Formats: sequence, C-alpha cells, structure tokens
Amino acid sequence: MKDFKSTYVTTIRNEDGVNGVSKVLVPNEKTIEVKHPKEEEVAYNPEQFVGLALVTCLNASIEHQEKIRSLEHKSSVEADVHLVKTKAGLEFYIFVRADIPHVNRELAKEILEAAELACPVAKLMRGSNNIEIELV
Amino acid sequence: MKDFKSTYVTTIRNEDGVNGVSKVLVPNEKTIEVKHPKEEEVAYNPEQFVGLALVTCLNASIEHQEKIRSLEHKSSVEADVHLVKTKAGLEFYIFVRADIPHVNRELAKEILEAAELACPVAKLMRGSNNIEIELV
Repeated sequence: MKDFKSTYVTTIRNEDGVNGVSKVLVPNEKTIEVKHPKEEEVAYNPEQFVGLALVTCLNASIEHQEKIRSLEHKSSVEADVHLVKTKAGLEFYIFVRADIPHVNRELAKEILEAAELACPVAKLMRGSNNIEIELV
Repeated sequence: MKDFKSTYVTTIRNEDGVNGVSKVLVPNEKTIEVKHPKEEEVAYNPEQFVGLALVTCLNASIEHQEKIRSLEHKSSVEADVHLVKTKAGLEFYIFVRADIPHVNRELAKEILEAAELACPVAKLMRGSNNIEIELV
C-alpha cells in the first residue's frame, strides 16, 4: 500500500459506538444515525452498512459489465446479513443474490464472475468464508 | 456456514447501481441515496458505507472493552477510505486510526487488539492486505 495514487478519499468518524451517530468528515460533512441492530428505527447499524456497501458496489460492477456488452441495465442485487454467535464470537454471515434477468444463464454467470472480480468491496472480503454470492 | 442460529438478519437491495438508491427491506424499510464518489452530495457511496461499517463496529467493540475494564467510554475511530486504481483494477485502501485517550499506551494497544479480534466487520476484511489499523 505504498506510493499509491488515490482517485478519491473519504474520511469517516465514530465516537458513539453503535448507538448515536457516525460522521462523514471528508469530502463533505454528513451525519448518519446508528443504532444497535436490535433496535429497529430509522437509524443504521454495521450489518446494514456492510450490506449497503456490498449490494451497491456489486450491482454497479454488474451494470458496468452490462454496459460493455451493450446490454440494458436490468440487474439487481440483494443481500441478507446475519449476525451470528459462533465459537469465534460475533460474526456476520452474508448471503448475496444477484439477479440478471435479461440474459441466458451462461452469460449471467460470466457477468457475475467478472463483477465479483472487479468490485472493490467484494475484493476486501474475498478472504472471508462468511460470504456466499449466488445467481438467482 | 451451515446450521447457524442467526440472532439478527437484515436484507439490503440495490437496483440502481451506484447512482440512485439502495434499500433496507428487512427488518424495516429504509431508502438511502447513493451516488458515484466523484459527485459530492448528500448521498452515500460504497466507500462511505465500508468506512461507516468499520468505524462504527470497531468503536463499538472498543467501547465493550472499555466497559469490561470499568473504564469510561472515550474512544473514537476514524478511517480514510481511498479509491485506488491498481494493476488489479479498482481497489479500496483503508487507513483506520483508533484513539483511546484515557489509558496508557500499553493498555490502549491491548484494548485495540481485543476489539479488532471481536469486531465482525474487521473479521470480514481480515484476509485483505488493504487495511491498516493504527493506534493514534
């Protein structure tokens, strides 16, 4: 990670833990409410931030694959993020479902594989056994 | 990932890629605006969701460590999430700074290490070489 050229940077800050707010400091200030997952409110929790990161990024990567094949954008991505207590403590288990409804199964698989390889969020989690991505 | 008992589950959906909205479907419906990182608005991008997940979760884990040591909660966590073009394509580089100002350096290190091991979001990204977590 030395001598890299950044094309974008954002800075995020949390003081309150999981009950309160987290803040985007850079490039523009934004405050988002956070809450423990058991409290169902308008606020967000880490499970949801992880899911939001993954589905947004992966579907954008699929959209890019549609584009370079001159296909219309029709894909969608859903994820269930589970909080699970294991012997290793608390863990997230993530089940991702990608829907690419307008192409045949073979091409859909090819597109999803290419998108998984390209998506920066999927790359960050590639070493984890807790994520399953499937084509629906 | 078989036969696990989930203590919480949230379902997230994206249809629009990185420009539009992502949605929380379960346990309660919420819609959050998303935008390409180059467009600085009120909306969020995957870089920010990843940062929000990590700082919120890690600081909550530090807070837990403060608690079991009967310490006041005074920690904060900040992260810079960079979007970087490498030979491997687009990647996120993440630099995390944890501040635990009210204990000596040795204890702060011990707390941070325990929190890193416990935080489900850090666990998901443990296999990645793109994350650096430091005590400030």
